[in-house]
Amino acid sequence: MTADARDQRPGPTNSLADVAGVRVGHHTAVGDGWLSGTTVVLLGEDGAVAGVDVRGGGPATRETDLLDPTAAVERVHALVLTGGSAFGLAAADGVMARLEARGVGVQVVQPAGPDGVAPPPVTVPIVPTAALFDVGRGGVAANRPDASFGAAAHDAAVAADPAQPVASGNVGAGAGAVAGGLRGGLGTASVRLADGTTVAALVACNAAGSTVDPATGELAGARVGLPGEFDHLRPPARVELDAHLAAAEGDASLNTALAVIATDATLSKAHAAKLAGVGQDGLARAIRPAHSMTDGDTVFAVATGARPAPDFVRFQAVLAAGADTISRATAHAMLAATSTSTPARSWHSYRDRFPTAVGRTPPTAAPTQEDAT
Amino acid sequence: MTADARDQRPGPTNSLADVAGVRVGHHTAVGDGWLSGTTVVLLGEDGAVAGVDVRGGGPATRETDLLDPTAAVERVHALVLTGGSAFGLAAADGVMARLEARGVGVQVVQPAGPDGVAPPPVTVPIVPTAALFDVGRGGVAANRPDASFGAAAHDAAVAADPAQPVASGNVGAGAGAVAGGLRGGLGTASVRLADGTTVAALVACNAAGSTVDPATGELAGARVGLPGEFDHLRPPARVELDAHLAAAEGDASLNTALAVIATDATLSKAHAAKLAGVGQDGLARAIRPAHSMTDGDTVFAVATGARPAPDFVRFQAVLAAGADTISRATAHAMLAATSTSTPARSWHSYRDRFPTAVGRTPPTAAPTQEDAT
Repeated sequence: MTADARDQRPGPTNSLADVAGVRVGHHTAVGDGWLSGTTVVLLGEDGAVAGVDVRGGGPATRETDLLDPTAAVERVHALVLTGGSAFGLAAADGVMARLEARGVGVQVVQPAGPDGVAPPPVTVPIVPTAALFDVGRGGVAANRPDASFGAAAHDAAVAADPAQPVASGNVGAGAGAVAGGLRGGLGTASVRLADGTTVAALVACNAAGSTVDPATGELAGARVGLPGEFDHLRPPARVELDAHLAAAEGDASLNTALAVIATDATLSKAHAAKLAGVGQDGLARAIRPAHSMTDGDTVFAVATGARPAPDFVRFQAVLAAGADTISRATAHAMLAATSTSTPARSWHSYRDRFPTAVGRTPPTAAPTQEDAT
Repeated sequence: MTADARDQRPGPTNSLADVAGVRVGHHTAVGDGWLSGTTVVLLGEDGAVAGVDVRGGGPATRETDLLDPTAAVERVHALVLTGGSAFGLAAADGVMARLEARGVGVQVVQPAGPDGVAPPPVTVPIVPTAALFDVGRGGVAANRPDASFGAAAHDAAVAADPAQPVASGNVGAGAGAVAGGLRGGLGTASVRLADGTTVAALVACNAAGSTVDPATGELAGARVGLPGEFDHLRPPARVELDAHLAAAEGDASLNTALAVIATDATLSKAHAAKLAGVGQDGLARAIRPAHSMTDGDTVFAVATGARPAPDFVRFQAVLAAGADTISRATAHAMLAATSTSTPARSWHSYRDRFPTAVGRTPPTAAPTQEDAT
């Protein structure tokens, strides 16, 4: 840990809400054959500069091409992370409708004809979207987020109290998440850098790979925790790890981790794309393997620009913090997830599979002295 | 013109329908404040290998990231070209629903839990989509293609007679098109190469730049026509060109040209992406300027694989033919477009602005002998 890192502290809520102007809302559907949801990240009426990095082999995305640094649009008005695989991309329809109704978007004015009459102006909200695979986990394959999910998550984001942490666990895009056979979910984290810049991340952890170190049973993402952040965790009892490994809960399944990094720094569009790219390192450290052919791992990065543009050295710190907040958010996602049974299947949470890791009495067998180190 | 080119002939319909297994359907909405539509290209139950190249500065796209040659999905089941700017991406929702109902898509089977119970299987249709800007041209900015447009265009494609040419002009994604101030539209063309391979293209020509050579008034895309294809065209009378230039119909406006190249050759996913990229050269030759910051110019390429994979030399011919069929399809789009007046604006078609070019009596002034060459 560098001297800088020892000084780092999370923001007030240790969540994406610590970046001023960023609001998060979830819509969650559980039961009656459902286990899915949608998360909307609102970026204010003027939007935020954005970039994206798609590194998984099975992405489901919408409006990512316009985030190429050579493309014209600089600022996006919302991001959508959603369950439902490619079907879930329909959630963006509802977010666009809500934003248009509020007049949020790119204002497009068209040229008039020779008679001076022109088509009416239009407001086009820019809403990049990525979907993860959770279809059928609630029992009914036809239950997938649609436009109404996006609208409801938008409304929840508008109503969100910015002083409160973003809700985590099995909510929104994390409602149907599974990671390495354990129950996945939604997690978030933030850090305030030495110069006052805030970097925060939100992760919908739904991965073919595992978040658990197969040698120790620890959450890999917790290794880059801030001072004290994961002090409540212990290496779990060996018997718990053996049970986890024997259950083959780490079997590859259809997944995709989605993430958003937000910062209040001023970044160019190209630097936002770079931040998204380095953010994939945070997934790589927290999930192994990552970026497989069945994962559609996608990282968005947004910069609100409330603070000045970092110089070269400070931008390096923002990049490193982006990756680490994603790793930390991934660990938080796993810790906030809860064991779930549906007509389709059952999944253990990390807490229930590794009770000694989180300071609970093991339900099955007492760890030996050696295991309980 | 090379010896090869002199031998080239179009397929039976000189349209995208000349590639066996490819069907095209349009849904068009004109009047009552509407001037937009959606075009669906169906690629059979097993789909086709696909690639994409996004070169415009203002793209509106969906499911393009999975077309990266490093991503897992090899075959797509349909392509959607649509009006409605980013709002129009909702058309894909309706196409996906129709394909899923027919069981067309990637069959996804998920692993079972310890009790042997697994989530239900699901069919995920792969439907890459791109939208062009035509919003408000019918008079009402809220009139944009939605899921119902995609479903209707899908149904029209299913019902299409493969022996008939694809309908062109102001239909489907070309319903609201404008190009360089003239009325744009949808055009298509095909070529049968010497080895029997068919290459065909479909273009929704809606461009900030002009399809008209400002020095001669000729359609630039017609310069690469097959023998006899555009023999009915003449350089227009100077007075017509002067009127066109004086009307500043070439003023930049919000646009985007969308194109599909289809071939019956067997191509790798990477070669399909290469074909899409070279296809942009066909737009460049037919539209000037092209690929501007307000254009979202996007070219898809699909290979059905009914014929063998071309060797190196023959693949070069496929690439050249892909670009040229796009240029030719662009010229056909302009020739098939019709002058249009809506409450929002009026646009001249090429035929009405340049009547002497298409062998009609000029409505305003007779061309001089010199002009009528």
